[in-house]
Amino acid sequence: MPTINRKELTLEINALREAHPDHWQKACAIRVLTLDAVAAANSGHSGMPMGMADVATVLFGKHLKFDAANPDWPDRDRFVLSAGHGSMLLYSLLYLTDSPDMTLEQVKNFRQLGSITAGHPEYGHAKGIETTTGPLGQGIANSVGFAIAEEHLRATWGDDLVNHYTYVIAGDGCLMEGVSQEAIALAGQQQLSKLIVFWDDNGITIDGPVGIADRTDQQGRFAACGWHVQSIDGHDPDAIDRAIEQAKADGRPSMIACKTHIGLGSPAQDTSKAHGALTDAQLIADTRAVYGWEHGPFEIPGEIKAAWEEIGARGAAARADWESRLAAQEGDRRSDFERAQSGKLPGTLAGALADYRAKLIADKPKVATRKASEMALEIINPIVTETIGGSADLTGSNNTRTSEMSDFTANNRAGRYIRYGVREHGMAAAMNGLALHGGVRPYGGTFLCFTDYARPSMRLSALMGVPVVYVMTHDSIGLGEDGPTHQPVEHVAMLRATPNMLVFRPADVVETAEAWEIALEQTGTPSVLALSRQNLPTVRTDNGRENLTAKGAYILAEAEAKRQAILLATGSEVSLALEARDMLEAAGIGTRVVSVPCMELFEAQPEAYRKKVLPNSGVRVAIEAGVRQGWDRWLLGERARANKADFVGMTGFGASAPAEELYEHFGITAEATVAKVKALL
Amino acid sequence: MPTINRKELTLEINALREAHPDHWQKACAIRVLTLDAVAAANSGHSGMPMGMADVATVLFGKHLKFDAANPDWPDRDRFVLSAGHGSMLLYSLLYLTDSPDMTLEQVKNFRQLGSITAGHPEYGHAKGIETTTGPLGQGIANSVGFAIAEEHLRATWGDDLVNHYTYVIAGDGCLMEGVSQEAIALAGQQQLSKLIVFWDDNGITIDGPVGIADRTDQQGRFAACGWHVQSIDGHDPDAIDRAIEQAKADGRPSMIACKTHIGLGSPAQDTSKAHGALTDAQLIADTRAVYGWEHGPFEIPGEIKAAWEEIGARGAAARADWESRLAAQEGDRRSDFERAQSGKLPGTLAGALADYRAKLIADKPKVATRKASEMALEIINPIVTETIGGSADLTGSNNTRTSEMSDFTANNRAGRYIRYGVREHGMAAAMNGLALHGGVRPYGGTFLCFTDYARPSMRLSALMGVPVVYVMTHDSIGLGEDGPTHQPVEHVAMLRATPNMLVFRPADVVETAEAWEIALEQTGTPSVLALSRQNLPTVRTDNGRENLTAKGAYILAEAEAKRQAILLATGSEVSLALEARDMLEAAGIGTRVVSVPCMELFEAQPEAYRKKVLPNSGVRVAIEAGVRQGWDRWLLGERARANKADFVGMTGFGASAPAEELYEHFGITAEATVAKVKALL
Repeated sequence: MPTINRKELTLEINALREAHPDHWQKACAIRVLTLDAVAAANSGHSGMPMGMADVATVLFGKHLKFDAANPDWPDRDRFVLSAGHGSMLLYSLLYLTDSPDMTLEQVKNFRQLGSITAGHPEYGHAKGIETTTGPLGQGIANSVGFAIAEEHLRATWGDDLVNHYTYVIAGDGCLMEGVSQEAIALAGQQQLSKLIVFWDDNGITIDGPVGIADRTDQQGRFAACGWHVQSIDGHDPDAIDRAIEQAKADGRPSMIACKTHIGLGSPAQDTSKAHGALTDAQLIADTRAVYGWEHGPFEIPGEIKAAWEEIGARGAAARADWESRLAAQEGDRRSDFERAQSGKLPGTLAGALADYRAKLIADKPKVATRKASEMALEIINPIVTETIGGSADLTGSNNTRTSEMSDFTANNRAGRYIRYGVREHGMAAAMNGLALHGGVRPYGGTFLCFTDYARPSMRLSALMGVPVVYVMTHDSIGLGEDGPTHQPVEHVAMLRATPNMLVFRPADVVETAEAWEIALEQTGTPSVLALSRQNLPTVRTDNGRENLTAKGAYILAEAEAKRQAILLATGSEVSLALEARDMLEAAGIGTRVVSVPCMELFEAQPEAYRKKVLPNSGVRVAIEAGVRQGWDRWLLGERARANKADFVGMTGFGASAPAEELYEHFGITAEATVAKVKALL
Repeated sequence: MPTINRKELTLEINALREAHPDHWQKACAIRVLTLDAVAAANSGHSGMPMGMADVATVLFGKHLKFDAANPDWPDRDRFVLSAGHGSMLLYSLLYLTDSPDMTLEQVKNFRQLGSITAGHPEYGHAKGIETTTGPLGQGIANSVGFAIAEEHLRATWGDDLVNHYTYVIAGDGCLMEGVSQEAIALAGQQQLSKLIVFWDDNGITIDGPVGIADRTDQQGRFAACGWHVQSIDGHDPDAIDRAIEQAKADGRPSMIACKTHIGLGSPAQDTSKAHGALTDAQLIADTRAVYGWEHGPFEIPGEIKAAWEEIGARGAAARADWESRLAAQEGDRRSDFERAQSGKLPGTLAGALADYRAKLIADKPKVATRKASEMALEIINPIVTETIGGSADLTGSNNTRTSEMSDFTANNRAGRYIRYGVREHGMAAAMNGLALHGGVRPYGGTFLCFTDYARPSMRLSALMGVPVVYVMTHDSIGLGEDGPTHQPVEHVAMLRATPNMLVFRPADVVETAEAWEIALEQTGTPSVLALSRQNLPTVRTDNGRENLTAKGAYILAEAEAKRQAILLATGSEVSLALEARDMLEAAGIGTRVVSVPCMELFEAQPEAYRKKVLPNSGVRVAIEAGVRQGWDRWLLGERARANKADFVGMTGFGASAPAEELYEHFGITAEATVAKVKALL
């Protein structure tokens, strides 16, 4: 590793300061806030914000369309920090520009329990955090969804309402992850000209110089996917400004390779040490000295803060103009636009679906639930015109493209169907971006088994709470000849293990329509529809208009003889349970069949309802063409569960804080264990 | 889509036939076997084998080093069909060259229950199937592992024992999957010059022309990663031959873009219809007519079969020479080589580990289990010299690089440590390739949460039964400030849901060493070690030499007062359970603590042992910093499980056969359900 000579470093920094004194002060504010916050937390990543401060300062200062006081403005430019470990870059920018949520107190509480300044940016913690990043490659892949949403909404609503850029900062790690290739290729295919990616080309990863693991010519790689590429000195504000102008002028998505020094100005500059937390007091003092920064920790001089606040207010007039244009829309356009933005469904949907279900119960079609999904979408898509469908090259198998849909392409931005290609991961990440952008409701399909490929982004749908709908067909050995590589066995259990995710495995055409309705009603939870390849009979006979799938589980067929057994089943195995019931009843064994389309919704029912469906008597057998894991909870029964055994662990996602505090916070302690034992006794 | 004119087609095919009559006949045999097998199965993928038959014929005919009669020959060239849906290409080649497992009967039973000719090639079904493919991108990513293994073993044993190529056929789907980018970049970084990839550049995917989803300049993309690239007419045997020669001559990994016609010669040629099953009798008859092939279904004329068998025997002499060279090795080199090939551990390992554990129990160090893993590897790696470690850019966090290891690089092929870069998926897929190649034992690390990224390849480790060891550190909220994106909550449950996978969550330094020993002893099962970031006390006090982790669960601390409660825990929560036990005992509540380092191994114990550890009395609380799913099975207890409830579903992976037969085969039927209910009553 290169040894950094302090004298040379000072000279270099001085040259930067002298060439662009105002710029330097603003960028320096980001650098010292980062140093101070990481030092206070005694953990985090200092080097990236220190390296990319100049790019961020020019971007926010001269280009990013935003109004800090109104971070929800739908037509703001989106800024995605794909290299999420550099979270202090984003928190600094939000604080400096006076974004309402980001106080100095929050910055001081970086990485502490209850703060909004988590180790990695968490969507929902603060306005201005457009997406959760940290798992590498996700941000750049989300950004494709943001950019598609913008193109589609611009075509739909006109550029007086929608017309913005999506900017991304990605690091070497983001570009090494395979999902980045899926995203880059998809963006190139779709010619997303308003997507601009800054690659933090600092040559350093955690393990050392990038060269120990990669020799990719990134510019060549992006160019091969149809991108406009540039390479600049990432510390030269003029070069950064010019590059952004050129990127905007080009008709392709644009990648700007920014040569930067990780940990700029610190003794750890250009080393993998700088990737992590720089916490040594002397190192921080030396760095401040090199910067010529004489203010105390977390102290930003008034004039520098004022300059940043001016930047934060730069877009206020543009936003006000936009509000006027929205107000001036004719007819229902304003309310329609606002409804789509809000995620609320059109009022006519529920009735249309109830009518449709009544017809199904009368007609009793025997169709695969993947076909049933298409039939439901044929009702939904003309009403919910903000849906954006798609498939990872399995359109004919997933049945995701309804009759009125046309492909979204470079020449047809009004199209509502996306050909994602064989890119399950890129699809899921793009759908997160679409949902986060707002104004559209994404759904997309692949085979359930290939949930595996999409998994990192599906987890983020759940963690962020975005209502993406995953249409996962071919949901068991029922797919037949394609064999074990294509047959999900553990996948339904895996999805059920994930917090904040609704996993539906509908039994027939009726439950499929119900599941779609529930999935679309969600505003903070993604849904997975596990759908059969094979045809299934209509098992629902009750012709009430209630959505029974919303109960999670319900009595589909009651025992005729005295009830001795309860059969629980999902999806394609429900009709099989009914068959078994007939055989048991014939043998004098009264048997109830409970359909369980969604365990999470059943778990959320009042205890009284759960007990009614699953009383503590008789025997129970569950039937599902997947692994047993997850079923014991329902086989065991309420009483045994409540009275004789218990569990100490997690029920949702974690949080950013020191470990001991997290154990305490989530109640995973010896004391909690003792209390549970005592309660059981 | 282009309309194919039958007359033009015939003329085109005639030109091919006349230019290379012998070649044509051999390639045609692949094409008609494919047509016949797909027609018989009424499912499958006809077009790819028909398109790539010429490439395969030249590769097998003139280049591939193999001896069909001895498909296990360690120094054979490896042939990986990454585009696994074209499985009939491989089955045809194995049958035609007279590979022992692949009879004509098997080919006729394509995609049927119990046949070795599954819908997608399944490793273990037949010799000559080097890896399981079908999930796209996996084969090309495995091949990086095959090529690394070859380079490393050649450096270790000399090129008289190891010196072979790895050939891959990949399709557009493989190249769209993100994992292919990780593989391509890794191969370029490592300058794997004996890796040669044929890209089936047919311009067609399931949804239609590739152009609807991709416009990537694949040659440009490979070149950007340091590959040698060529583009040829994939139906011209001379061009194919020359391209392979040039690929071999170049010092870089090589990609040959083969322009082919999917479904060559059929009326569906060059359309997405040809991607799937061509089963129409008239279409097949027309295609045979265009080919000028006048033989019946599955009928290969003797002279064509003989020509293929000659190819199959082409490598017999080379293999015999190789055997002689192996026999002539001096000292222990032959037995050492054969031991490493067999996957057997050196006899000295068990004793060394037992001594090491005894010392730990005496010393009681308090270390993180990730550190404990490194300590165990410091014992293991000098003894088991075939281990190949690595990490996805988290070496210092995963503690996977032991003191005597050097990096495997283009200049140091003897190195045993791989810098995989930020490529968890590529790492897992490469490790599968390393393990499948034989002669090496791969392990690699990342954070447990990023199991998500590696998941498709981890599933294939389990499905294929290859003993890869996944070192997954930072295994809970115990990692602290990095926050929920980095904190596994559902991951241990997800891994436990996967069939044929040992999931270890060791409690201390002793259990970690035991888990490593068990993981290395496996020959047909991958292992995951879920390891803590934070320090944990040594909880094991028993100084016997038995590996207690091998029991899966065991009584770590017995109740002192009359036993009323059992606490079950894993990993970092075991010490917490011991603490709770102290508190309960102080309150007069006799409490047993059961450590559960591996549920799968506990499940495999005799019922009597399980009952001894978890008797049906008192209350139970499980403690794990993850979701409850999977624990109810142990909270419920043996009696309730056996007597009052049961489950009908899957316990392992599926199979390739018509769906109804699979349901029957796996016992997911109304009859089985009825039988279980009756047994419970």
